[in-house]
This record gives sequence, C-alpha cells and structure tokens, in this order.
Amino acid sequence: MASRLAVLILVSAAVLSSQDKMFQPKFVDDNQLIRPEGFREWMFVGSNLNMGYSEGPPPAESRFHNIYIQQESYRQFAATGKFPDKTVLVMEVIAAGTNVSINKKGQFEDKAIGIEVTVKDEKRFPEKWAYFNFIGKGGTALAQAKPFAKEACWKCHNEHAAVDNVFLQFYPVLRDVKPK
Amino acid sequence: MASRLAVLILVSAAVLSSQDKMFQPKFVDDNQLIRPEGFREWMFVGSNLNMGYSEGPPPAESRFHNIYIQQESYRQFAATGKFPDKTVLVMEVIAAGTNVSINKKGQFEDKAIGIEVTVKDEKRFPEKWAYFNFIGKGGTALAQAKPFAKEACWKCHNEHAAVDNVFLQFYPVLRDVKPK
Repeated sequence: MASRLAVLILVSAAVLSSQDKMFQPKFVDDNQLIRPEGFREWMFVGSNLNMGYSEGPPPAESRFHNIYIQQESYRQFAATGKFPDKTVLVMEVIAAGTNVSINKKGQFEDKAIGIEVTVKDEKRFPEKWAYFNFIGKGGTALAQAKPFAKEACWKCHNEHAAVDNVFLQFYPVLRDVKPK
Repeated sequence: MASRLAVLILVSAAVLSSQDKMFQPKFVDDNQLIRPEGFREWMFVGSNLNMGYSEGPPPAESRFHNIYIQQESYRQFAATGKFPDKTVLVMEVIAAGTNVSINKKGQFEDKAIGIEVTVKDEKRFPEKWAYFNFIGKGGTALAQAKPFAKEACWKCHNEHAAVDNVFLQFYPVLRDVKPK
C-alpha cells in the first residue's frame, strides 16, 4: 500500500509540475538567445498586418505578425497585471496571400517567414527586456541571435508600450484580461 | 492511509481527465448552439484581414478574423490528418485599428466584435458540419444561435475547403502539422 501511495504521489507531482512548467529562454555566449520552439502552442494574443511606426507608403510585401506568450505568463498577467521574469513573447512573421483558392478579397496568412522575440530577464539584462531577430539573410532561420542594441527596440517599447514594455494597446487578448 | 490513497486517486484522476477533456459543444432546442466560451485559450490556427469570396471593393470597415480550434482536436489532426467528432472552430471578428498610439502604418486588432462558429457533429447534422453566427443586431452577443441553411455556408466549405470542410489553405498552423 505504501509503495502504491508513493507511486501515486510521484504521478500526481509529475502531472502538476508539467502544468506549471513555463518555457524557459535559453542563452549561450554573449547573451545570445537560442531560438524558441513550440510557440504556436502557446497563447495567441493578437495579430497585425504591416504594422509600422513611421509615416510612408505600405511595404512592397505584405506581412502578418502573430504574437504569442507562454500560457503561464499569460495566467500570471491575468491574475496580477504583471509579466513574470522569463516571460517570452514571440512574433511570427507570415507572408500575406490573396487571390488563392476561392479568396478574392482581403489577405490571409500564407507562408511563414520567421520569428522575432523579446525576453524579460531581470538578472541578465539591466533594462529587463531584450529583443532578438531570428530571420537571417535570405530568410534562413537563425539557431541563435544576439540582443539588439538598446536604441533599436527597447527604447521605443519602453517609451510607448502600455504596460512594462509590452504593446498592450495592440493585443486585445492581454488587454481584456488585465486586472482593472 | 486508505482514505489518503482514495483522495490521491481522485486528485490524480481529476488532473488527468482535465487534461484530456475536449471542449464539448452544447445544444438546445432545434439544434441551436450555446455560445462557446474560453476559446481564446484554445489553439490559434490563423488570422486574416477582410477575407472575402467575391470580387468587389474592400469593405467600409476593416475586420480581422482570428481562428481557434480545441487543443485536443488540433492534436488529433496533427496525428491522423482527421478532425474528430465534436471539433469546434471559432472565428473571432475584431475591428482593425490604425493610427493609434505610435502606429502609423498597417492595421492592428482593436475591438472585439463577436464570433462565428462551426461544429462537426456527425450524429446531429447529416452534413456533419454546421455553421453559426453569434453576432446579433447592433453587435450584441447572442447566447445561442441556429445553424445556417446548408446553402449559406456548408456548400462553399464543402466544395472549396482543402480538408473536410476546413479551409486549411488559409490556416498555416494546421497546414504545417498535417501528416504527409
């Protein structure tokens, strides 16, 4: 009986801990981030098309951006309004298609191009958040990427994002669960 | 000891079954579907902007459509290439915004408008799939909705969708996991 109890405790603990295990960003030399995998099974928080922050004509090639966050970070944000340490947001870039099959109007998500990523790591980065691009030359997927300089991404996110460097104003799913 | 064991068995069973419990569509009289809840925590499979199936000018008001499926149906589809009975796909309609905050270009997801839904229920519907609109007059969210007539949605899905009435050609996440 005692051994069966021990097995059950182990099974219960394993099941419970697997539910609580948040994807952890992994780094190598010089704070290079290893490309996150499996993010399509995370929480989707919003999409945009050709989002840009400067005036001018639309881009020659139309792109959707789908944004994902770990389920565990989403739940903590919904409960507390704060993004926990080791939060990862992945932006998947997807070429927009049109006039395919029966589609005659508007744009749908066609071919995946690659990902850009932000990570919150309070010990590793003095500014807490760092930004990474995994889309290499010719569209190759980089296995690892160096953080951008502070002026390239962080500054704009820090000045304009609604909550803790995250553009809540563009992500309806996060906006709607933020505690009032 | 026996009672602690019983409690542990119950806890283990509850945890395990909650992981395997696929959201089940619920119906009332005349095959009316109760509006599904919680779909934003399902699997996201693709987004589109102003998708339309007929020639003509773009709509006066721009709309994103985000499509979700239950995790369990997604996993079965990834393993077998088939959508199990009781599969539910939810299309959330979201008004597109632009020129808000630092956005100067492109379109982001602004205000949620409502949902349209398809359900696969082989016993209930002779055509297997049925289609529902939960966006009432003036944008009110309907608590329940009648299935559309076969000619309104089913026919086009049946003729043009890549796999079993589902427009895989527009959903990269499902396309990429379909067994070859």
